[in-house]
Amino acid sequence: MASPKKKLQGLVAATITPMTEHGEINFSVIGQYVDYLVEEQGVKNIFVNGTTGEGLSLSISERRRVAEEWVTKGRNKLDQIVIHVGALSLKESQELAQHAAEIGADGIAVIAPFFLKPWNKVRAEEVLGGIQEKIPTFQGLKFSDTDLLDFGQCVDQNRQRQFAFLFGVDEQLLSALVMGATGAVGSTYNYLGKKTNQMLEAFERKDFSSALNHQFCIQRFINFVVKLGFGVSQTKAIMTLVSGIPMGPPRLPLQKASREFTDNAEAKLRSLDFLSFNDLKDGNLGACS
Amino acid sequence: MASPKKKLQGLVAATITPMTEHGEINFSVIGQYVDYLVEEQGVKNIFVNGTTGEGLSLSISERRRVAEEWVTKGRNKLDQIVIHVGALSLKESQELAQHAAEIGADGIAVIAPFFLKPWNKVRAEEVLGGIQEKIPTFQGLKFSDTDLLDFGQCVDQNRQRQFAFLFGVDEQLLSALVMGATGAVGSTYNYLGKKTNQMLEAFERKDFSSALNHQFCIQRFINFVVKLGFGVSQTKAIMTLVSGIPMGPPRLPLQKASREFTDNAEAKLRSLDFLSFNDLKDGNLGACS
Amino acid sequence: MASPKKKLQGLVAATITPMTEHGEINFSVIGQYVDYLVEEQGVKNIFVNGTTGEGLSLSISERRRVAEEWVTKGRNKLDQIVIHVGALSLKESQELAQHAAEIGADGIAVIAPFFLKPWNKVRAEEVLGGIQEKIPTFQGLKFSDTDLLDFGQCVDQNRQRQFAFLFGVDEQLLSALVMGATGAVGSTYNYLGKKTNQMLEAFERKDFSSALNHQFCIQRFINFVVKLGFGVSQTKAIMTLVSGIPMGPPRLPLQKASREFTDNAEAKLRSLDFLSFNDLKDGNLGACS
Amino acid sequence: MASPKKKLQGLVAATITPMTEHGEINFSVIGQYVDYLVEEQGVKNIFVNGTTGEGLSLSISERRRVAEEWVTKGRNKLDQIVIHVGALSLKESQELAQHAAEIGADGIAVIAPFFLKPWNKVRAEEVLGGIQEKIPTFQGLKFSDTDLLDFGQCVDQNRQRQFAFLFGVDEQLLSALVMGATGAVGSTYNYLGKKTNQMLEAFERKDFSSALNHQFCIQRFINFVVKLGFGVSQTKAIMTLVSGIPMGPPRLPLQKASREFTDNAEAKLRSLDFLSFNDLKDGNLGACS
Repeated sequence: MASPKKKLQGLVAATITPMTEHGEINFSVIGQYVDYLVEEQGVKNIFVNGTTGEGLSLSISERRRVAEEWVTKGRNKLDQIVIHVGALSLKESQELAQHAAEIGADGIAVIAPFFLKPWNKVRAEEVLGGIQEKIPTFQGLKFSDTDLLDFGQCVDQNRQRQFAFLFGVDEQLLSALVMGATGAVGSTYNYLGKKTNQMLEAFERKDFSSALNHQFCIQRFINFVVKLGFGVSQTKAIMTLVSGIPMGPPRLPLQKASREFTDNAEAKLRSLDFLSFNDLKDGNLGACS
Repeated sequence: MASPKKKLQGLVAATITPMTEHGEINFSVIGQYVDYLVEEQGVKNIFVNGTTGEGLSLSISERRRVAEEWVTKGRNKLDQIVIHVGALSLKESQELAQHAAEIGADGIAVIAPFFLKPWNKVRAEEVLGGIQEKIPTFQGLKFSDTDLLDFGQCVDQNRQRQFAFLFGVDEQLLSALVMGATGAVGSTYNYLGKKTNQMLEAFERKDFSSALNHQFCIQRFINFVVKLGFGVSQTKAIMTLVSGIPMGPPRLPLQKASREFTDNAEAKLRSLDFLSFNDLKDGNLGACS
Repeated sequence: MASPKKKLQGLVAATITPMTEHGEINFSVIGQYVDYLVEEQGVKNIFVNGTTGEGLSLSISERRRVAEEWVTKGRNKLDQIVIHVGALSLKESQELAQHAAEIGADGIAVIAPFFLKPWNKVRAEEVLGGIQEKIPTFQGLKFSDTDLLDFGQCVDQNRQRQFAFLFGVDEQLLSALVMGATGAVGSTYNYLGKKTNQMLEAFERKDFSSALNHQFCIQRFINFVVKLGFGVSQTKAIMTLVSGIPMGPPRLPLQKASREFTDNAEAKLRSLDFLSFNDLKDGNLGACS
Repeated sequence: MASPKKKLQGLVAATITPMTEHGEINFSVIGQYVDYLVEEQGVKNIFVNGTTGEGLSLSISERRRVAEEWVTKGRNKLDQIVIHVGALSLKESQELAQHAAEIGADGIAVIAPFFLKPWNKVRAEEVLGGIQEKIPTFQGLKFSDTDLLDFGQCVDQNRQRQFAFLFGVDEQLLSALVMGATGAVGSTYNYLGKKTNQMLEAFERKDFSSALNHQFCIQRFINFVVKLGFGVSQTKAIMTLVSGIPMGPPRLPLQKASREFTDNAEAKLRSLDFLSFNDLKDGNLGACS
């Protein structure tokens, strides 16, 4: 993904695609969104047009324009901008990859085939073997499963540490860090990036008990919303709440998050101090203890 | 799907998209393909750009050109040409539907959301209730599951018999006919259409034991290839064998069927007389008894 | 299952094990239960200690006593009494089989391994090949899946028609009859046996439209309760309602059906005339049309 | 599980039930097995009659005798002996629990219902809430899923640290340790206990890179056998190889591990030095680096 010069590490926000009430893309808030990620959440890498960004619900031309806008607004502010170019049609995927290169994105990512696909489940560690012979520009993996045997064996292969191993199950990131994850891609880093960065820092300095406290704190929120039913629609509602930037409703086939969900999520965010940045700046975990 | 004037019934072949060795669409054989379906298999309805046609692996412009070619070559030869316009992006789906109307297709079909989708499994019979209020042009359902409670309750609702209920699990079509299916959409009707039509006729005249013999005969073949691993790639290989029309390999992410598969499938087809049309014309079931 | 002399066919009720409020077996109503099945439902075969009978929740000694009671009370009234002797411990299974023979049951049935088990899903038709060499007393199969390719290929193998093929998905029995089912085992035959027998008779005389009407009628009820959450607990509540014989609550780990379920089920039963046998005797389908 | 006095922690070997070639229990080697665990693997806790021990394939009387033998031979040698008393029949489970108390086992464990069971998946963290009110002797949890959100939220609830949280997915134990696991129950600790203890010690002293090296080393073996097909049969074959104590074949419905599996597993064990204890005693990781 990232160019060899700079290695992708730390948190990568899977960006939401802001939309108007009518499901059209709201390009106007993307600049503000970039500033919010950098200044409020301390997140300087993004993953554009992925599942969280409803990338596969957008037309090819919309995906191009969304990518362009993030690259333009992120320039000199973000470290790495990765454009997801996966599509059911490889021709369209190739077109998007070409476009990402032209606009100067830092890297691309591609989802594995999910409609027409090989018979048997292929494990990531099996794919990784000798991948650079097949894909010379291969830079790393976004791993979004809880099978840490497979994940671990990917890391284990990577003796020269040339690849980035980005974990995609936000609620158990700590378990992947200890298994060798070099970073993480997720939707919650849009609004829990600061908190998650605190966990990464604690882990770096081997302060496990603090790292675990941060992880539990994050889990309490995710566990709460998961029980309510948590997906892209709900992520848009939560991000609107926390950031104040209007993300709008999702596009069909997704339905807008219910008012009940939003009210419950807001109450939970408050109870955990996730809506009170001063406290978080002080690293106040009161609400989480 | 079908225009109100003519009701869609009987067999509908889910067409393969013929390709060259390099995975480019081979438009040149589609005319011959139409004649083969009508003259050799007695199949006069087609379902274009579905899963069997690798529709979702094609670019939007390719899907338009494939649809145009089938409509052009099928004119005055086929009863109904249904274009599958499902896409992950609703905008693209709408564009394809508009195009299908413009080129004079008889109907469109759309797959249910399969990437971003509602939480809980929605049953077809729940969707069907009052659907004409939502979709005035709604004509029917392609049902490709073995849950015949759901299927039956769809048919049961349809008191005025205004809808077509097309079953999509070829190997157990007989079980759906007795439950009220009005027709079938499938990939095997490309090469087992004649045989399946014999089953439909036996069922019509209440000759169950013959109908069951035909079904078992078909099942022996499908059961055999299912154990070898049966999908779109294998369907292309089998159709090439049986029709003599080169369907070519599938496009990535699918892999070409193995030589071993093709050899085994051919032997099985011969042992069941599925490669000997004279015998079939005589309705010779020797090989299947 | 059945002794070679008499072939098992038609409906087989998977018997409920009546219990007291404290979850002890209520042997006292089993005689009445036998008479109800024969006289009110026209069902003369039973499958004892299966899933519906909570057989695997009973101790081995309880299973022996339940089997004895059914054999005693069913003598000269029932055609065939099949005792399910499946257990996780093969030693216990063998003990129960020996016991079933000693008490003069007509046959035994055994569930396939479901805890420790072979790697890959084994298809019934693969197991059936040459089974009489392995199990000389093998009499037939209870097939409780909707994969009618597998089911059909079991029937197809059985040229000499020596085996019984009993279908176990009550709500789509008609689809299996056309595929060659010789009978059915299920929980709904405890209270919808009469109705289902009407479907079997219509199918026998090739009156498909009546058979389908009966099937739809049955599906309306099953579809309704399935949406409410339908299992053994609910079956006990429904049977108590319809037969008037107290079946009691299930034993843990199952929970008693909710009052809400029972009320809704009762209303549905009434709306379909399933609580009014005179109407059913007249074959009145008014409520179902 | 454990009595309040001594807390269960560290590794717990899920014991194999040794059998003769005819599938009868081979009680004669259990004393030797105890010594092997303590002296060669440094494992002083055992979990008897679980899945690895084919507990559910044994009759109730066999389970009692197996438990007695382990308690007798383990006295004054093992720290904690936990008897799995789960059964499909709660009556039998209660009988086994009573028996475990009588023979002086340190604790019991029970599997969750897996045949007749509640509708919706219940999360462990939901069950844990207020469990001591329901089960005053509750001591902890064996968690054998990779959902570390659920696991973490169990640990998070346990402020007073009164419970043991034993992780059951051996190949990713490190990921659970960082999430607060207090120990582990697994089949691989029978023969990889020493190696796994080295990982626990490294983790304790915050030497993550060593801990991760040990985890990867273990993963290489498990990943290898998982691809070959890994279950109780294979565990018996591997333990026979590594310990030299004859574990015998599994009991039906399991099939004995193939010769091919055993040969491949042995070669892998040698290549990783898992058959050369002197090297391991020196903590030599050469083979794993």
